[in-house]
Amino acid sequence: MRLVTYRRNVLEEARLGALVDNLVVDIQWLGDAAGYDMPCDMLDFIDLGPNAIETTTELLNSFRDDWPVGVTQPLQNVKLLAPIPRPRKNIFGIGLNYVEHVEESSRSLDTSADLPKQPVIFSKPPTCVIGPDDAVEHNAKITQQMDWEVELAAIIGTRAKRVSEEDALNYVFGYSVMVDISARDNRRAGQWIYSKGMDTYAPFGPCIVTADEIPDPQALNLWLTKNGETKQDSNTKFMLFNVKTLVSDISQGITLEPGDIIATGTPSGVGAGRDPQEWLWPGDVIEAHVEGIGSIRNPIVAV
Amino acid sequence: MRLVTYRRNVLEEARLGALVDNLVVDIQWLGDAAGYDMPCDMLDFIDLGPNAIETTTELLNSFRDDWPVGVTQPLQNVKLLAPIPRPRKNIFGIGLNYVEHVEESSRSLDTSADLPKQPVIFSKPPTCVIGPDDAVEHNAKITQQMDWEVELAAIIGTRAKRVSEEDALNYVFGYSVMVDISARDNRRAGQWIYSKGMDTYAPFGPCIVTADEIPDPQALNLWLTKNGETKQDSNTKFMLFNVKTLVSDISQGITLEPGDIIATGTPSGVGAGRDPQEWLWPGDVIEAHVEGIGSIRNPIVAV
Repeated sequence: MRLVTYRRNVLEEARLGALVDNLVVDIQWLGDAAGYDMPCDMLDFIDLGPNAIETTTELLNSFRDDWPVGVTQPLQNVKLLAPIPRPRKNIFGIGLNYVEHVEESSRSLDTSADLPKQPVIFSKPPTCVIGPDDAVEHNAKITQQMDWEVELAAIIGTRAKRVSEEDALNYVFGYSVMVDISARDNRRAGQWIYSKGMDTYAPFGPCIVTADEIPDPQALNLWLTKNGETKQDSNTKFMLFNVKTLVSDISQGITLEPGDIIATGTPSGVGAGRDPQEWLWPGDVIEAHVEGIGSIRNPIVAV
Repeated sequence: MRLVTYRRNVLEEARLGALVDNLVVDIQWLGDAAGYDMPCDMLDFIDLGPNAIETTTELLNSFRDDWPVGVTQPLQNVKLLAPIPRPRKNIFGIGLNYVEHVEESSRSLDTSADLPKQPVIFSKPPTCVIGPDDAVEHNAKITQQMDWEVELAAIIGTRAKRVSEEDALNYVFGYSVMVDISARDNRRAGQWIYSKGMDTYAPFGPCIVTADEIPDPQALNLWLTKNGETKQDSNTKFMLFNVKTLVSDISQGITLEPGDIIATGTPSGVGAGRDPQEWLWPGDVIEAHVEGIGSIRNPIVAV
């Protein structure tokens, strides 16, 4: 199932939908039509656990050839928001999680050339999140080195405290795309949160694909274009620490909760690692893709 | 005003109170008695803005000599929780913000001896927060280097985006005490969130003192004892970047929101900087104090 957060117009509240072909099917309204009480919010849906996915899948299948009146909207008529417009906590980011990106970072930034022995965790505040087509704000007073990073995002479905690697994927609700926008000139004493944590620095979407439809999260192409030109092009099989290791590792010390987001790291091809280095400027447009999930496009605008 | 989050027993929901002498005055119930609709939750109270403080102050003054029945509890009869038991996002921590702590850290950890030119920001997830007398969990499988850090915490009252230093303190709701528990052996590629972000690693409380009662946040003694022995003893006047600078600086890139917490850094005297180094172990008890606010005591327990 492909879940979205959408609204029909700017006056209405955001709502939870499922993408079926080119339709957005409103999950609460579909439930109403079938006599089920379903939520209108992604986090509430995730909180309901696996039963919600099962019930919704059944409803979508049973009505697929004859949608109740008013339950669907053509995708092109709605505005998609980030699937979780406001996470309940920081996003967990993973740094230096693809071999070639470790190498390019050690050349161009201040990180070690040695492969990390454990996942390198940092965070982005929830105020970073924007959705498809939303503007990434470029404040030239703060940064002259804005960079791109396409990432597979894993969304937690079940409270996870000290879970084993073998069991870890059972705690994942689904997957999405996140761009870890990074102002390279704003690292401070090696800490990344300010450089990666500014408002609008986490384009997120277009949807969450539930985990049952991504049988292997370590076999997905991911790539990013800037103004139509491919800048990053890799596959999640090249992660140093895969999704199950990340979930298990974080959960040893930090309890993960439903709706938590782990941005699993970026492959090589970032602007900092290029010769000459390349940065994002107002007028640029980035588009980040992960196979099986979709793409998110965002313009860079001056503020 | 000294605000607390408390409950009368484990079966009841947490509630918002004000400390008056040795009484906890329930703010919602006091409002009920006076015909005012007041919240029972600290974050809801903060969201109401300065009027809520003004109204509550007036109510407390007018009933001070004759509390309505059922509105007050003796402090020793209630359990105090962290003033904000569940923040809405990560806590913003500030590293290397006292000169002598920069020096001791450069000797004992992996940080530079140079004074930082800008605030060094990191984060702790909201799952870190515990209240007075709650246990700090010591997991010997993860850390053999658990350390203490007493800090003044500033709590944001008003949405702050690109505010000036001159204006910054107007965005502060109040102040509290936070301990930035740090597992020194869990830094990863220089990132601190895992070492400082584990469950129970942010003892917080006992109360929030509203900003009107702290005329100068840069003139407060702060100290920490371990098993009754003083380990840290300093004054907030020795901060490298003071509260107004921190609020203004963070807000240039990251919008601060009501209820956000900034832990403003720790003075020297941490365990890592001692010769020989000293760590926290199960059975130890720490007590952190900030002048004009109070103290929070927490035992270290094995898990």
